Amino acid sequence: MSAPESPAYTELIGHLQKTSLLASCAHLLGWDEQTYLPTQGAELRADQMALLSGMVHERTTSPRIGELLSQLENDSQFNNESPASANVREIRRTYERATRLSQKLVEELSRVTTLSQQAWIEARQKRDFATFQPWLEKIVALKREEATAVGYGDGLPYDALLDDYEPGMTATKVQEAFSPLRDELVQLVQRIAGSTHKPDRSIITSSYPVAAQRSFGRQAAEAIGFDFSAGRLDEAAHPFCSGIGPGDCRLTTRYDENYFPQALFGTLHEAGHGLYEQGLNRNAFGTAMGTAASLGIHESQSRMWENFVGRSRAFWQHFIIPAQRTFAPVLDDVSLDDFYAAINIVEPSFIRVEADEVTYNLHVMLRFELEQPLISGDLQVADVPAVWNETFEKYLGLTPPDDAVGCLQDVHWSAGLIGYFPTYALGNMYAAQFFNAAQQELGDLSEMFARGEFAPLKDWLRTNIHERGHQFQADRLLEVVTGEKLSHQPLTDHLKRKFGALYGLD
Amino acid sequence: MSAPESPAYTELIGHLQKTSLLASCAHLLGWDEQTYLPTQGAELRADQMALLSGMVHERTTSPRIGELLSQLENDSQFNNESPASANVREIRRTYERATRLSQKLVEELSRVTTLSQQAWIEARQKRDFATFQPWLEKIVALKREEATAVGYGDGLPYDALLDDYEPGMTATKVQEAFSPLRDELVQLVQRIAGSTHKPDRSIITSSYPVAAQRSFGRQAAEAIGFDFSAGRLDEAAHPFCSGIGPGDCRLTTRYDENYFPQALFGTLHEAGHGLYEQGLNRNAFGTAMGTAASLGIHESQSRMWENFVGRSRAFWQHFIIPAQRTFAPVLDDVSLDDFYAAINIVEPSFIRVEADEVTYNLHVMLRFELEQPLISGDLQVADVPAVWNETFEKYLGLTPPDDAVGCLQDVHWSAGLIGYFPTYALGNMYAAQFFNAAQQELGDLSEMFARGEFAPLKDWLRTNIHERGHQFQADRLLEVVTGEKLSHQPLTDHLKRKFGALYGLD
Repeated sequence: MSAPESPAYTELIGHLQKTSLLASCAHLLGWDEQTYLPTQGAELRADQMALLSGMVHERTTSPRIGELLSQLENDSQFNNESPASANVREIRRTYERATRLSQKLVEELSRVTTLSQQAWIEARQKRDFATFQPWLEKIVALKREEATAVGYGDGLPYDALLDDYEPGMTATKVQEAFSPLRDELVQLVQRIAGSTHKPDRSIITSSYPVAAQRSFGRQAAEAIGFDFSAGRLDEAAHPFCSGIGPGDCRLTTRYDENYFPQALFGTLHEAGHGLYEQGLNRNAFGTAMGTAASLGIHESQSRMWENFVGRSRAFWQHFIIPAQRTFAPVLDDVSLDDFYAAINIVEPSFIRVEADEVTYNLHVMLRFELEQPLISGDLQVADVPAVWNETFEKYLGLTPPDDAVGCLQDVHWSAGLIGYFPTYALGNMYAAQFFNAAQQELGDLSEMFARGEFAPLKDWLRTNIHERGHQFQADRLLEVVTGEKLSHQPLTDHLKRKFGALYGLD
Repeated sequence: MSAPESPAYTELIGHLQKTSLLASCAHLLGWDEQTYLPTQGAELRADQMALLSGMVHERTTSPRIGELLSQLENDSQFNNESPASANVREIRRTYERATRLSQKLVEELSRVTTLSQQAWIEARQKRDFATFQPWLEKIVALKREEATAVGYGDGLPYDALLDDYEPGMTATKVQEAFSPLRDELVQLVQRIAGSTHKPDRSIITSSYPVAAQRSFGRQAAEAIGFDFSAGRLDEAAHPFCSGIGPGDCRLTTRYDENYFPQALFGTLHEAGHGLYEQGLNRNAFGTAMGTAASLGIHESQSRMWENFVGRSRAFWQHFIIPAQRTFAPVLDDVSLDDFYAAINIVEPSFIRVEADEVTYNLHVMLRFELEQPLISGDLQVADVPAVWNETFEKYLGLTPPDDAVGCLQDVHWSAGLIGYFPTYALGNMYAAQFFNAAQQELGDLSEMFARGEFAPLKDWLRTNIHERGHQFQADRLLEVVTGEKLSHQPLTDHLKRKFGALYGLD
């Protein structure tokens, strides 16, 4: 793929690459903030981040970009599905979004979300929604304003917000996929609750020394193909993966000595994100072609390695012996099947980030079902706790004892991230669809996993997804790779098959 | 101290603070490069650093600075020893230096030093000066050009280079201090060599597990006052201290399981630098008043904590028991005096960075005595190895077996750092002068150290040196604090007293 010979295109890409390089400096500072920054350095870090993001914003909204785009968009070679067209398309999308928001709105959003973080922390500590309510009202109003400014054509205001995280996705398409998924999962959770199979949770709550977990997690991340010569694994209170840029992708996890799944599956999850970042085309750094397609596609990679691989029986056919050796003697008398059952316990619980593979999606859908009417105006902020609890009871059969473990549990809304949640469940659906396609092409993946062979899947993902960057929007990428439209079916099939067997539901 | 009310001054300081904030981002990236950067991230990091330093350079040479300076320099309130005057003076010095160098010279220096690093590494590996010679010739020629461009009034070309690291210092003043120091030290080294006292080196080459060294080093750095809530201690191949900015100062060290002094005294050395950085006035960040006075003054702080404190008998009166406990059983049967003698072994050796407290200065002076004629044109690069070896023999009674442990050992020249070495020995002289002044004011510091009390010295340094930032040039600061001019006498007195006792020379 050779770049088109166009001075305007060359200038535009050069501008963008420099902006991305500057942004990559901010990413490193952001990583450091979460891992190694001394407490007293917080104020300096905030100043540094504000400076860099201000510079990045200035470059992103430079009127010169608009001029160059106008020239290119009349040129047929930038109007198809080519890499260059994708770059132009995404620069336009980002530029429009950034320039359509007034300076006043951007500043107000920044001011309000900074203050509301504090209010949210306080509200959660006091288990008192009223403390947060006025802030959430402000945020919802501002996000509506944002949606209006960005525009949403014939769609819904929510689409304009969703588009920031999942370009091209709409609330209607999300709803169409979520509805049947929800019905299937509510039923599946109920059937599991009624099962007589009761896995032994004590297997995963024994003593797992942190040093041993650290080395085991690194070994697993290496085994699935994460390249430590181009990345790291550190600790952070809120784990994440940061793709700083070519050759530098950083994972974080956290360790709980008495809860084995946390660090390991967290590490596999972040390593899944990391494999995506490491698989992007280095030469396209700074352009759409060197960038992930969407948050949902990103999440499909992390969830695939965490759940479809890491929580599979086949994975543990290979890893149970190394685990027994590493954590001796706690796993000495544990069978493969008991271990497999213990790391796959399904049980309704209040906290999304601690939820199992089945209930997790219900947590996410609940949030979408609140966000959407909040933005359309059909739900008042004051009614959020009641609707949350009602819906939670309906989906999971439990009622949160207070809002701290209910509608106040997530940081997202206080940070102004409305429209972000759906990408988590979209990621699970994409993952199932991609996994099926890989399996169709590569044959029985389980057999490979059982032999410790993860390269075939990794390479398939690299060719089909990672190296394509953001050439296509998520739904189009899905179609190109799998031949299918977004569907809940592969995910529900997978979950029913896996947990049906585990809980003897047939 | 209230800031003068001058719009030009306000604008100038604002400009400078933003530049410093941007530079502090580069410092964090530089720290990360030496500590945690994955190998494959090197190219990205080089691009990031080039981008940031280009932006910093552009801001530093902005013509607006020249305009503002011209306005301020006619104003009497910026023409005295006030903080505001110091800020203006240093902005002028930096601005002149940066703008007097042509773009062509700056780029050529950058290009040549990058390439010559490779040549130097190869030459050192092959133990072959000829490989490096043409590069050193280019560098010397460029540094002469730099000196001419910067200017040196009635002084020597070398002064213009020295001034970059030790503002206000001249080759003549350095020479005046170094000559008697050299004579005294050559004699002292010879007397020590003739002593019948032979300390037991095996004490410091036993097995000291790295984990234990790490915790002991941290404990020692904390004890002398390094604030870990505003700093860190990590590992690096070439240890350094990086003052990122207010609240964030990062030390590094390296561990040798079979050589105790390396990590601990390295840590105390870097913590000495760190205490200076942590003691700077936070509110003056980005201006001369919030910056160290010179490399020599910086080195005076590191060498004071490393040698005058860390290698004192009093320090170990306090720390020998914690050390025995931490490293049990290797120090169980070692007496305080035997340990003290072992960490203070004086012995001529080839490598500067491994040299003891006495011979170290001779290594430094040797370099100055080559650099100065290289720049004046009185010494040809081709003659460097011969003159190096001759001088080394004269000072230390040894002849390097090859150039790898001779004139090729340091990275400085290949990096274009000519005029830097003297600051190491100046630091030792300043340290002795400051230490005497502190002792005069505070009473017997040894008694305090023996009780584990380091705060009085740290606080004295804070008030007298750290908080003054770069209000004064180094020689003036020395005068203000000690009432003395630069002199070798306090250092030679200290060394003769300490090592006379250790080696029974009286």
